[in-house]
Amino acid sequence: MFMHNKKLMYTVRVGETNPALANLMLEQFGGPQGELAAAMRYFTQYLAEDDPGRKDMLIDIATEELSHLEVIGMIVAMLNKGVKAELSEGAMAEADLYVSLGQGNDSHTTSLLYGGGPALTHSGSVPWTSAYIDTIGDPTCDLRSNIAAESRAKVIYERLINVTDDAGVKDALGFLMTREVAHQKSFEKALYSIENNFPSGKLPADPSFADKYYNLSRGDGDIDGDLTGPWNDGPQWERIDEPGLQIAVDGGDGSASVSLSEEEETALDAMAERLSSDPDADVITGADLGAGPGAGKTTKVA
Amino acid sequence: MFMHNKKLMYTVRVGETNPALANLMLEQFGGPQGELAAAMRYFTQYLAEDDPGRKDMLIDIATEELSHLEVIGMIVAMLNKGVKAELSEGAMAEADLYVSLGQGNDSHTTSLLYGGGPALTHSGSVPWTSAYIDTIGDPTCDLRSNIAAESRAKVIYERLINVTDDAGVKDALGFLMTREVAHQKSFEKALYSIENNFPSGKLPADPSFADKYYNLSRGDGDIDGDLTGPWNDGPQWERIDEPGLQIAVDGGDGSASVSLSEEEETALDAMAERLSSDPDADVITGADLGAGPGAGKTTKVA
Amino acid sequence: MFMHNKKLMYTVRVGETNPALANLMLEQFGGPQGELAAAMRYFTQYLAEDDPGRKDMLIDIATEELSHLEVIGMIVAMLNKGVKAELSEGAMAEADLYVSLGQGNDSHTTSLLYGGGPALTHSGSVPWTSAYIDTIGDPTCDLRSNIAAESRAKVIYERLINVTDDAGVKDALGFLMTREVAHQKSFEKALYSIENNFPSGKLPADPSFADKYYNLSRGDGDIDGDLTGPWNDGPQWERIDEPGLQIAVDGGDGSASVSLSEEEETALDAMAERLSSDPDADVITGADLGAGPGAGKTTKVA
Amino acid sequence: MFMHNKKLMYTVRVGETNPALANLMLEQFGGPQGELAAAMRYFTQYLAEDDPGRKDMLIDIATEELSHLEVIGMIVAMLNKGVKAELSEGAMAEADLYVSLGQGNDSHTTSLLYGGGPALTHSGSVPWTSAYIDTIGDPTCDLRSNIAAESRAKVIYERLINVTDDAGVKDALGFLMTREVAHQKSFEKALYSIENNFPSGKLPADPSFADKYYNLSRGDGDIDGDLTGPWNDGPQWERIDEPGLQIAVDGGDGSASVSLSEEEETALDAMAERLSSDPDADVITGADLGAGPGAGKTTKVA
Amino acid sequence: MFMHNKKLMYTVRVGETNPALANLMLEQFGGPQGELAAAMRYFTQYLAEDDPGRKDMLIDIATEELSHLEVIGMIVAMLNKGVKAELSEGAMAEADLYVSLGQGNDSHTTSLLYGGGPALTHSGSVPWTSAYIDTIGDPTCDLRSNIAAESRAKVIYERLINVTDDAGVKDALGFLMTREVAHQKSFEKALYSIENNFPSGKLPADPSFADKYYNLSRGDGDIDGDLTGPWNDGPQWERIDEPGLQIAVDGGDGSASVSLSEEEETALDAMAERLSSDPDADVITGADLGAGPGAGKTTKVA
Amino acid sequence: MFMHNKKLMYTVRVGETNPALANLMLEQFGGPQGELAAAMRYFTQYLAEDDPGRKDMLIDIATEELSHLEVIGMIVAMLNKGVKAELSEGAMAEADLYVSLGQGNDSHTTSLLYGGGPALTHSGSVPWTSAYIDTIGDPTCDLRSNIAAESRAKVIYERLINVTDDAGVKDALGFLMTREVAHQKSFEKALYSIENNFPSGKLPADPSFADKYYNLSRGDGDIDGDLTGPWNDGPQWERIDEPGLQIAVDGGDGSASVSLSEEEETALDAMAERLSSDPDADVITGADLGAGPGAGKTTKVA
Repeated sequence: MFMHNKKLMYTVRVGETNPALANLMLEQFGGPQGELAAAMRYFTQYLAEDDPGRKDMLIDIATEELSHLEVIGMIVAMLNKGVKAELSEGAMAEADLYVSLGQGNDSHTTSLLYGGGPALTHSGSVPWTSAYIDTIGDPTCDLRSNIAAESRAKVIYERLINVTDDAGVKDALGFLMTREVAHQKSFEKALYSIENNFPSGKLPADPSFADKYYNLSRGDGDIDGDLTGPWNDGPQWERIDEPGLQIAVDGGDGSASVSLSEEEETALDAMAERLSSDPDADVITGADLGAGPGAGKTTKVA
Repeated sequence: MFMHNKKLMYTVRVGETNPALANLMLEQFGGPQGELAAAMRYFTQYLAEDDPGRKDMLIDIATEELSHLEVIGMIVAMLNKGVKAELSEGAMAEADLYVSLGQGNDSHTTSLLYGGGPALTHSGSVPWTSAYIDTIGDPTCDLRSNIAAESRAKVIYERLINVTDDAGVKDALGFLMTREVAHQKSFEKALYSIENNFPSGKLPADPSFADKYYNLSRGDGDIDGDLTGPWNDGPQWERIDEPGLQIAVDGGDGSASVSLSEEEETALDAMAERLSSDPDADVITGADLGAGPGAGKTTKVA
Repeated sequence: MFMHNKKLMYTVRVGETNPALANLMLEQFGGPQGELAAAMRYFTQYLAEDDPGRKDMLIDIATEELSHLEVIGMIVAMLNKGVKAELSEGAMAEADLYVSLGQGNDSHTTSLLYGGGPALTHSGSVPWTSAYIDTIGDPTCDLRSNIAAESRAKVIYERLINVTDDAGVKDALGFLMTREVAHQKSFEKALYSIENNFPSGKLPADPSFADKYYNLSRGDGDIDGDLTGPWNDGPQWERIDEPGLQIAVDGGDGSASVSLSEEEETALDAMAERLSSDPDADVITGADLGAGPGAGKTTKVA
Repeated sequence: MFMHNKKLMYTVRVGETNPALANLMLEQFGGPQGELAAAMRYFTQYLAEDDPGRKDMLIDIATEELSHLEVIGMIVAMLNKGVKAELSEGAMAEADLYVSLGQGNDSHTTSLLYGGGPALTHSGSVPWTSAYIDTIGDPTCDLRSNIAAESRAKVIYERLINVTDDAGVKDALGFLMTREVAHQKSFEKALYSIENNFPSGKLPADPSFADKYYNLSRGDGDIDGDLTGPWNDGPQWERIDEPGLQIAVDGGDGSASVSLSEEEETALDAMAERLSSDPDADVITGADLGAGPGAGKTTKVA
Repeated sequence: MFMHNKKLMYTVRVGETNPALANLMLEQFGGPQGELAAAMRYFTQYLAEDDPGRKDMLIDIATEELSHLEVIGMIVAMLNKGVKAELSEGAMAEADLYVSLGQGNDSHTTSLLYGGGPALTHSGSVPWTSAYIDTIGDPTCDLRSNIAAESRAKVIYERLINVTDDAGVKDALGFLMTREVAHQKSFEKALYSIENNFPSGKLPADPSFADKYYNLSRGDGDIDGDLTGPWNDGPQWERIDEPGLQIAVDGGDGSASVSLSEEEETALDAMAERLSSDPDADVITGADLGAGPGAGKTTKVA
Repeated sequence: MFMHNKKLMYTVRVGETNPALANLMLEQFGGPQGELAAAMRYFTQYLAEDDPGRKDMLIDIATEELSHLEVIGMIVAMLNKGVKAELSEGAMAEADLYVSLGQGNDSHTTSLLYGGGPALTHSGSVPWTSAYIDTIGDPTCDLRSNIAAESRAKVIYERLINVTDDAGVKDALGFLMTREVAHQKSFEKALYSIENNFPSGKLPADPSFADKYYNLSRGDGDIDGDLTGPWNDGPQWERIDEPGLQIAVDGGDGSASVSLSEEEETALDAMAERLSSDPDADVITGADLGAGPGAGKTTKVA
């Protein structure tokens, strides 16, 4: 179970209020790469995990991410403290409040709808959704997802640091950014301490297709414009450039088929007949009608 | 630009129609780990990529994923071919069609709303959203996200194979599963051919916090129940077990503060006074009223 | 900041695995009335709250709701423990796994996509969204919202208890249900210890309209069929039955108007002319064309 | 403004309760082709419309759709009347209620979360969203959208009729289906009474591209497999089969370019260098590590 | 299957970078009327289509829309090329980057979250959802939906052209706009080459209600203010103005009813009694309590 | 059924057009606390309600909220009337239209995508969703939800009034705000006229836990910093401060358990072994590889 201590994990010292800056910070509060996504990602993995070591790590880090959510949320609350009170009390003339409300970065929605409170939305006011969480319940996948997620969160914090000149905010963001690096390291160690973690799952890949690279995007008429690198060239790879070898690679006819029952065939035939398009029809259409008697503005009616 | 060949990349031979199985397949058509997510993930990265080699790889693989989307979509179309025609033509008695429609796995929605066509939803009928795509525009992050995504897609295909006994469907799924493995290898190669790809971004981590592991979940009263592993133990790590060292780790007081203007202070004071809760109030509440004259069913137990 | 103890707040003893029952439980894990919604509701209010007593209460209860989220999540994890392992290991014949997967209540999606892990979705597999949280940053509103939310959560738990015959699950659900009652009481007390908490906000209601009840739904031709009760009858109310007194109640003409600049007028006139519908046109339409030469199946072309 | 009459527009006589059938009906209550979507589509168009005749038509039909929403909602309420009361009162043994709740078609969610009330979701329990409404504020587009929407709603009603054998439900559905046909006719008439309604908007199409049909999907190596019809053949069309004429159709080089400032160039060069992939690198990757010492299960490391 | 050519379908020449303009362009990349919606609309219809001619047309146009998605995406990438590199490299002082980031039109989210890459969102940063696609699997409906969709896309392009003064962007937008016109023509031809395409579906409309127009919105007390046009007047229509003829049009009593089993009746009665509102109660409410001892600010307590 | 009168419930007189102000108004049109949410909330409750008095009240108020939706929608339509026509007709130079379009508060999306029409989105352009509606079908819950919803709507109107200086808009907003107060009073009266409305539902709370307050957030090392109030102190409460009494409050061991079948045990053991993390592994990870030959920037600091 969870406990709470009234102190923050990191002290927050904001220089001055700024609702538009607050909304950029929301990206790491209620955005897809933010702390709620991180906390819930690891917390739900912890619940289902059976390996005792990983389970312990997951709840340690989930708990820390909740504490980070509190730090970034407090930054937002501090940056909005002015507009919250002024709007609540109607403390300024309407035109001044209107300006104060709409300083950009969707701060109008944060002020108007959420009263300046930290809302679980991203910086463009879209509500958080658990669709952001990509956990599927296999640790060799989920640890890779966690590694990627931590690297993303690190970079979003870096971008926020790059656009903030408030020293106190920068300081706290630097701590949060660093912890994502530490968490990534933990998840990397946990992944590689599973033997044979690649490929994920139990079923082997089909050797006929596991090492092929299909060169499907062509350069200027020939393939000389196509580039190679370790991702498609070298002893691990067989590169397939020839279009004929890229299609119906199983050697079949490349069609799709299904066996139908007699009843299904009958219904299908009836539907096909009822809804067939006559390829030889000489039809007048709604567009022809709508293009007007004086012939079409944009199309020659013949 | 894109071209299309009327043959599929892999021949699809479905044994018999089955709307409920079709809906399981939707998971890899319009689900979070499915082929549309994959295709759009790599396609949007390709558009913004400046490195010529990675750009070429991204569009090669994006194009292949579109071709996979076509294969899995055709499997769905074949499995639904019966119910589509029968519902369209009203080919059976109502009660029979009702049963046919609702064979489980949300096939009722696929039949009723989409007429048996492959819809871009997951297996539980939730529409696809680009919120599934976690691209942020930094290749050291995005390649890690791609690696994780491919490992997840591989495992979902494995699960589908595990629950399908239609030989033709199994065969095509095996091809699709294998290609996820190949794609993961390409993205791994591309990531590690970027020198110094860890940590992502440009800003260095703060050495004070980069190697610490905060042991925030405690065992039975003491910390002996806590487990160690490469993720929190060893020369790369400093483990912090002591609660006092986990709070306000910057050495501050763990509070949050902001400087306010005089006008902001005034508004805040007015708001605080207007909305203060009296801690010593002896209040009757709506719940007290609602608990009825005969005393509460659940309250005032004392 | 948050800490975690490895013991649950309430011991979970599940009788046997049951994926379809697990999914009903998801309603209180990732559903609109569930524990994540509760925890995030109070946690975000805590961040923005300035009243010290309410702030303390909000974080106490938010922390408890996180601990409830863990309890209900563990129930889900236990109920899915069998299907998770069997699907992961391909432990049964395909046809058996197919049946095991699709036992109803959307358990196919939970198994296939989430590998049997507790996912932040509702019982019908829709992802959790912060759009479920209705906090607006005014305590007299938010406390009312909290009161309502607790009463709803109580009833959903009651429904789950009504459909579960696993004694261990029932026992834990009973605890969780009871705590919602206790939380509702706290929020009621906090609301009523704010003096003059009705109406919310600072601006007074307009006395011309504050006590009127508009009887807008009519009975059988006359208003005798309309019912009265304390909500529209008595000294607090003036009931308006007469249609003429319900329309344009400000005494104006009931129209909408705006002053336009000259440029705006010009553009509007041009648009109006370009897009006017000729009320006297004798037009053939696409539907007329589509109804076929043999006259319409459903419409007399006259 | 709106008024309400306590009688329904069409009398609803349901034979017996059936929660699973109720959920199919939800498709036309809170589904994408349902009555709320219809009512809100026309109501919002009415608000912005400047042509007096169309404005009047739009609010007439919007009001009727609201009345249809009431009819279909009452059907749902009647079909759920049993399960609602039984669940509320705990009127049966748990196992019986569990069975009663989960009769399929997502009725478990409707019962558990919504208490058997008509919820604004589709038949698969996804909440209604205004993203279903495609109004863009141009009448020649919006009327076409309305025409299409009415045709879709007609067909969904037809499917519901096809799977229902309750005579009372069928009767009411037949009325609702028919009204969609009538509404489509009205919108067709309104569209064609706008002169020159094709193409929509004011800007003319570019004659170089307005009549071309690009044959981008090829048959078996040659184009002989491609089919023709009035949509790509005839005096209105110029068909382009030659791949070389389908690419960079403006005659340019088919590349994308932008002029950058000097500062932008500098930043771009720095980024390119920092993040370049070395095409000649001979790299060991995480996948190589994870494939284990005994070489890969699925891939030959060479 | 799909192939890709490294040249674009139309050459993109952007004058200078402009993140705020880029975000307007997102409307046709990841917006509801944009190219992904178009491509997926036709691609999914192609998968389920049985008529060979229509199937061929659908995949031709789907493939072209994917190529358009690439063109508009490249425009976005070019317009953001500066901010992407500058933010990535921290190339400017924080305050300058802050300004550069937030130039309006939600470009702050595109820069911060997506690193300046083309994201599948609309111009207001809402993620793309397949809920935008209204395909239902009946060609007479889907072709009408396609016609409407093309007319909408045409007009959104026209609006973008109207607000852009970059010649290269305007040029490419003009091509894309024109192609929507050509596609609309194809879909019109395909629709009208289906005989008897109106009304959609197989079931005939009920002649009692197919030609009636219900005049449900009334003018100033009488119906003289109501307008007529081809949509409600003429030989095809019977207009119903009389309120009494608009209610319970089936001639029934306009009520809703269902037959209940004895058990259901019992449960319903128990519920009704337990939850009845006493119409004669003289109740004090929470609002009364909250309005304070000094009587209500806004309501007379009597 | 519904009828409509062409007069508004309240006359709308807007001073001048202002697209950015229009978008703030959208908050009460298509936002979570807006009039559509209110109308649909009460309308859906009305459909399922069995108590005749409450049913009548619910449809009276639902009908009024629809009339309010019309009033606020007309305000939006008036404020956008200029930009709608100018954009439609291309009435200004591109650069001027670009400025006109993007005046802030997401008006660019409203103009570009919706053509200046009132769209069912909130002020930050997020589409309305029925996930905003929290009805669960129990009147003692739903009336509390309605009470809370009305108080929230009142405060959002107050905020809009505070930021608007257009006298006509302010006047109409004042009416709408006042009616929310009146509706809240009705719902309060209806709630308290249900005897024993607390707690909601039928099952009694467990007396062991119904009156406990768990003090889970601690002050500075001791609990002296914790505050008391009527919500956790007084005769109704037993406050639990001792951590040992807050954990596993049922007296169990605080673990989660489930009985597994033999087959399940076998599969679980196989999975555990296959996926175990070796706690003693000395592993090189992808991050180690990626940190480069010159040792990590951030790792191995020790």
